Amino acid sequence: MMRFETLSVFPQLFDPYLNTSILGRARMSGVYDHQGYDLRDWTHDRHRTVDDAPFGGGQGMLMKPAPLFEAVRDIQQRQEVPAHVVFFSPCGKRFDQVCAQRLARMQRILFVCGRYEGMDERAYELADETLSLGDFVLTGGELAALTVMDAVVRLLPGALGDEMSAVDESFEGGLLEYAQYTRPAEFEGRNVPEVLLSGDHARIAAWRRRNAIERTARWRPDLLEQAELSDEERAFAQEVREGQNMVDGEVPNGRERD
Amino acid sequence: MMRFETLSVFPQLFDPYLNTSILGRARMSGVYDHQGYDLRDWTHDRHRTVDDAPFGGGQGMLMKPAPLFEAVRDIQQRQEVPAHVVFFSPCGKRFDQVCAQRLARMQRILFVCGRYEGMDERAYELADETLSLGDFVLTGGELAALTVMDAVVRLLPGALGDEMSAVDESFEGGLLEYAQYTRPAEFEGRNVPEVLLSGDHARIAAWRRRNAIERTARWRPDLLEQAELSDEERAFAQEVREGQNMVDGEVPNGRERD
Repeated sequence: MMRFETLSVFPQLFDPYLNTSILGRARMSGVYDHQGYDLRDWTHDRHRTVDDAPFGGGQGMLMKPAPLFEAVRDIQQRQEVPAHVVFFSPCGKRFDQVCAQRLARMQRILFVCGRYEGMDERAYELADETLSLGDFVLTGGELAALTVMDAVVRLLPGALGDEMSAVDESFEGGLLEYAQYTRPAEFEGRNVPEVLLSGDHARIAAWRRRNAIERTARWRPDLLEQAELSDEERAFAQEVREGQNMVDGEVPNGRERD
Repeated sequence: MMRFETLSVFPQLFDPYLNTSILGRARMSGVYDHQGYDLRDWTHDRHRTVDDAPFGGGQGMLMKPAPLFEAVRDIQQRQEVPAHVVFFSPCGKRFDQVCAQRLARMQRILFVCGRYEGMDERAYELADETLSLGDFVLTGGELAALTVMDAVVRLLPGALGDEMSAVDESFEGGLLEYAQYTRPAEFEGRNVPEVLLSGDHARIAAWRRRNAIERTARWRPDLLEQAELSDEERAFAQEVREGQNMVDGEVPNGRERD
């Protein structure tokens, strides 16, 4: 069973999300578990202080090194398996699906979540890995930790149940996922692509493959270099990029790239 | 006041986060507000069905188009100001700090959060904008919406209070933020860079600028092209990239790029 742990000044932020929907069912059925720790439990003053002003001046407060060092060392000793310690910072490695797959093979992960204007730089020594969710600034690391946990849990065996699957989706083979449709076949004049109603599984598979390549070439051409494509498919992707043709059945609103 | 609205099958997932810490105080003091809507309120069958199987076969369920169209149209009519409608998809534009700044100038944003294996493609027509948090797959759009709200709220006037600031931080001027330190000046043999204790504000500012460039050159050289640098600074960044010198006072653990 995957064991997640979080160290945060808001340890109560995790369980409302982790106990809901797919993650809640996976937790209930023993696919993973979560233990939240309150950083203030490793302070020794009356006000349980975890932050202090930056040396050299500047606005905002930083997380002090001592409670972080003490907490991580103490938490590490509570289980036999050592925790893989993850910090979050805009300086870290970009989190992606390959990273989620790698983390899904671990047994125990401790997410250390900053707050305030940042952490004392010396605390990053505690990290086995520093991740970044993207090029934006959050008020704390809690949402980043939840996001990573969500992406990882759905890859764990049994998390999505028998009727669903974590394969055959976005980023498999390095492509965006093909367009999907459900009933009704016609909705206010908008029709599902005819081939998907044909029952011809070979034609459907071919359409989906082509559609995935077309969408990737249009919206995420940066992914194509690493994608697993035949020579013919690569030529088709190049054609799409040059022509920027409308994708069959595609509704383009709001997805133009800058 | 910024008005956020969310449309989701788990409308209860937002408020525990939005009512905590900086976002909670900002909400209480009228910087922003949030209204969550339950997509099932726009269904008309006894089971309040929002999902159905994909045409053409495949695992998992998709969100049906009809409840989404009906809900978004209905919600739009509830306020005078039209909502900027945001969907999430790996096919969308990558969310970043520039996007957060743009969204922070809006008056009303409706986040539409998918669940299951995805949405009927026709529903994306409702989006003014489709965003992607990154190249990974989540069980739903709720964490993506919370992440965007968090990044946006902290940019709103009054959100961080007088003593903090949303400037002077990561991605300002296109650079990562400089290393920061708080007390003690020496922690278990690890010293704060001497200059930060000097009280010499000009030297401190120069060190911080140089440190920010050095960290960006080392960990995110892709940002340098767009960064606002003098010729001399650009030459220094190039030197760092070539030499990969240790950053002054830097603790490198876990931040090596792949």
